[in-house]
Amino acid sequence: MRKNFGKHTWFYPMPVLIIGSYDENGNANAMTAAWGGVYDTNQVMLCLSRDHKTTRNIRAKGAFTVSFADAAHVAESDYLGIVSGNEVPDKLQRAGLHTEKSEFVDAPVISELPMTLECRLLKFNEDVNVIGEIVNISADERILGENGEIDPARLEPISFDGVHNIYLKSGEKAGTAFQDGKALQ
Amino acid sequence: MRKNFGKHTWFYPMPVLIIGSYDENGNANAMTAAWGGVYDTNQVMLCLSRDHKTTRNIRAKGAFTVSFADAAHVAESDYLGIVSGNEVPDKLQRAGLHTEKSEFVDAPVISELPMTLECRLLKFNEDVNVIGEIVNISADERILGENGEIDPARLEPISFDGVHNIYLKSGEKAGTAFQDGKALQ
Repeated sequence: MRKNFGKHTWFYPMPVLIIGSYDENGNANAMTAAWGGVYDTNQVMLCLSRDHKTTRNIRAKGAFTVSFADAAHVAESDYLGIVSGNEVPDKLQRAGLHTEKSEFVDAPVISELPMTLECRLLKFNEDVNVIGEIVNISADERILGENGEIDPARLEPISFDGVHNIYLKSGEKAGTAFQDGKALQ
Repeated sequence: MRKNFGKHTWFYPMPVLIIGSYDENGNANAMTAAWGGVYDTNQVMLCLSRDHKTTRNIRAKGAFTVSFADAAHVAESDYLGIVSGNEVPDKLQRAGLHTEKSEFVDAPVISELPMTLECRLLKFNEDVNVIGEIVNISADERILGENGEIDPARLEPISFDGVHNIYLKSGEKAGTAFQDGKALQ
């Protein structure tokens, strides 16, 4: 038996995206967003309210970063979603986070978050969602496996559960893509 | 030290979405997609190639379903991504999956997958991505907690790791949203 819940914005897994940007004076800001995903090859989409400082920054600079919140920084990531950059301009410092400028776009990389998409703004689309091109992906060496690739078990990305307002861990292997299904062919 | 990887379509966590649709003759089809996410309140976005049977079905019927692949159905979910509905019209049956028509939209609900977004097509947007309104969310009683709400630890949604082509488990609690960050205020 299935139960009907009506209309909700529930999605599993919903990412926890830390959006980094500079304002016109070069001050770094970051906010947490859960509404977004891959839009096309090398492209991401974000649904951000117009009144966020981040939204104005992205428009001004034509660039932003997307870091994935990880299990090691749950409190910091949550804080960046609770506090507005309009009211607390030094929220990154208050969270104990540090930034350096991306080598590729005019946006800050948060040093403590180990994986970052460095993005050029392509446009605000017809629904005013942010569409960005991934120009570079950078990752801290501590999340790389022995083969030099990003290891999700070391990254430990979290997701947002909007039903219960909790964060969930992910990372353990569940199966092999383009392989496990062959048994059914 | 950070390592630069260049342009890639990497994203954590990337969802594993099983898209259900009917063709003009009412035959159910399903495909696996990883490029998508929440587009706005009660809205989802999918990036699907034009040549998929699913894309034509969604255009014809103005409706689709999105079920979240779970740890209990890795092989079935993978199979639906390997095999094309254009070549194997009975792929759902071959995967051992059953469907019933949604009570709310003209699209199939896959009985074995325990959580489904039942969606009305709003439009193909300017970039030909599918934008759907979530009309109803249904869930199998086996994934509900004692309070009658969806329990992600019972759902066990998986995600797709495009770096290694594996599926990852998620579901264990990492923290409390809108709460853990307060310690930093």
